[in-house]
Amino acid sequence: MPIQAISWSSSGAVRIIDQRALPEAEITGDLESAESVAEAIRQLQVRGAPLIGIAAAMGLVAATRDQRGAPRADFLARLQELAALLLAARPTAVNLRWALERMLHVAEGTPGEGGDVWERLRVEATTIWEEDRAMCRRIGEHGLTLLSDGANVLTHCNTGALATGGIGTALAPIYLAHEQGRRVHVYVDETRPLLQGSRLTMWELGHAGIPCTLITDAAAATLMRQAKVDVVLVGADRICANGDFANKIGTYGLAVLARHHGVPFYCAAPWSTVDARLAEGDLIPIEQRSPAEVTVIAGRRAAPEGADALNPAFDVTPARYVTGFVTDRGIVQPPFAEGGGESPS
Amino acid sequence: MPIQAISWSSSGAVRIIDQRALPEAEITGDLESAESVAEAIRQLQVRGAPLIGIAAAMGLVAATRDQRGAPRADFLARLQELAALLLAARPTAVNLRWALERMLHVAEGTPGEGGDVWERLRVEATTIWEEDRAMCRRIGEHGLTLLSDGANVLTHCNTGALATGGIGTALAPIYLAHEQGRRVHVYVDETRPLLQGSRLTMWELGHAGIPCTLITDAAAATLMRQAKVDVVLVGADRICANGDFANKIGTYGLAVLARHHGVPFYCAAPWSTVDARLAEGDLIPIEQRSPAEVTVIAGRRAAPEGADALNPAFDVTPARYVTGFVTDRGIVQPPFAEGGGESPS
Repeated sequence: MPIQAISWSSSGAVRIIDQRALPEAEITGDLESAESVAEAIRQLQVRGAPLIGIAAAMGLVAATRDQRGAPRADFLARLQELAALLLAARPTAVNLRWALERMLHVAEGTPGEGGDVWERLRVEATTIWEEDRAMCRRIGEHGLTLLSDGANVLTHCNTGALATGGIGTALAPIYLAHEQGRRVHVYVDETRPLLQGSRLTMWELGHAGIPCTLITDAAAATLMRQAKVDVVLVGADRICANGDFANKIGTYGLAVLARHHGVPFYCAAPWSTVDARLAEGDLIPIEQRSPAEVTVIAGRRAAPEGADALNPAFDVTPARYVTGFVTDRGIVQPPFAEGGGESPS
Repeated sequence: MPIQAISWSSSGAVRIIDQRALPEAEITGDLESAESVAEAIRQLQVRGAPLIGIAAAMGLVAATRDQRGAPRADFLARLQELAALLLAARPTAVNLRWALERMLHVAEGTPGEGGDVWERLRVEATTIWEEDRAMCRRIGEHGLTLLSDGANVLTHCNTGALATGGIGTALAPIYLAHEQGRRVHVYVDETRPLLQGSRLTMWELGHAGIPCTLITDAAAATLMRQAKVDVVLVGADRICANGDFANKIGTYGLAVLARHHGVPFYCAAPWSTVDARLAEGDLIPIEQRSPAEVTVIAGRRAAPEGADALNPAFDVTPARYVTGFVTDRGIVQPPFAEGGGESPS
């Protein structure tokens, strides 16, 4: 069974698995404040586009537990402030903004004082989480058609139970195929610099008993040349109106290689990842992370002192490389005229 | 100035820079026996196709210092034995075989007893080293035409002073351009799993004062899409008669990406890297290294205990992706009817 990446603690804090500690240690942490949720998102203790949306929504609730006695105006002002703080944690994934805007919209539409609004928000955050779990399952069901018995899938980064409230996005069809007794084997890109593939995807697939083989990112090309990959499945952090999408650095190269070798390339994501407000991929803000993530590995210097490094966390894959988008609404093609990333109007 | 990766110690041992310790520590070691040279090659304390050829030739000499009093037949028999031991150290680079065969051929052709043959071999090993140094310079001169002022070069692995007896193969044109005052900037793939790019190339380019930026291997594609790469320069461990070549894992993917983005892609190597006995790339033996190089990083587990991993050290790039081969004989195109890898007949 896939693991559960997020839940409420008995006191109403946000309980997470600290994903920075995996696979060496399984540590759960209870995040009590919006600042601690934002910090966990920045530090990638909680990561994965859908999961950070859920964590932010739950974080708003946990952080306003002590505001339940506040008058309506004060409660809403505090909520705005905390949402802004959470929104700034990471720039690329649209799900974070989507979840926070949804929570604020619900708060404004709920009558009563702080306590009334808070109760409604707690229900809404749980709903976002449960909807995500259901979306994962629907993505899995739609994607199942892509995996025949004996299929070899190549994936990048982590798009599974650790990235969502459910069984993942790109890994969801794999979990369902395995559940149904189809033989599926997964090649897992280690995904430098933060090794989400080796640390997280190998860990959760191993937990579920799904056969998987770790490779360095640079080995994927030669596996495709050797016809060892039947399909590439990746996730997304933001999908634009025209179908261009941002995902973990390395995704674009895989898309080009898949095209070159005639391997189908699918992007799997819940509808909340679509940001129809952005016309095309080059408008997506790309998070630049610390060069130290590249120059220092496991506490040891990999590059000499003072070495310059570039560390974009994401890249943009133009829509023309994508065979199809596996969403909770089916396998679809752009353009996407309206998306989950839009504010409800 | 580029550093010097190999030399004779005052007692006639093979003095090397321990490349496993870089960049954290600059440690030199004196290899006294053929077994210690073979072990240093297996452990990648000495690496780079040209350099392991030189190290093996010098190792034969160091290892037979105590055989100088031996009768001819005994000396030659011992030499054969040690050459076989050295040849088995790594399977992919042809320069190792080339250098050892050249040494054995010279030994057989030299009259006299053990001492006479040994003296001749010492000269021959030094000649191989000096020829390599000259070849590097010629590769640099031929490749210089590829680097206009302000050029941005992308390279993979380490193909510089640490990989050769001189200023390198793919890095040689860069050293010469810098020497002549042309502005050149190098994007360096970190080159997982053993990080020769971050550990070695960044170190030696930094030593020489050449501007360079480290990237993860998976970031190269997006730099090409952003038109930030003017030319890709890589080395080779073996070049077949038809121009297919083996090089560090990840090279093939770069070749496909370069082709896709219209970026010129050059392979730089001394003529001794050509193995005209092999018709095509899929005949090259590809060294499979320990999965632990992928699953454990800097002594810490990156993947869970028991995780399966593939770790091919090299991949094969078909000749059709190569814009040209930058050799000591000029920038050439296959087929290669005769190559350094052939035994002298």
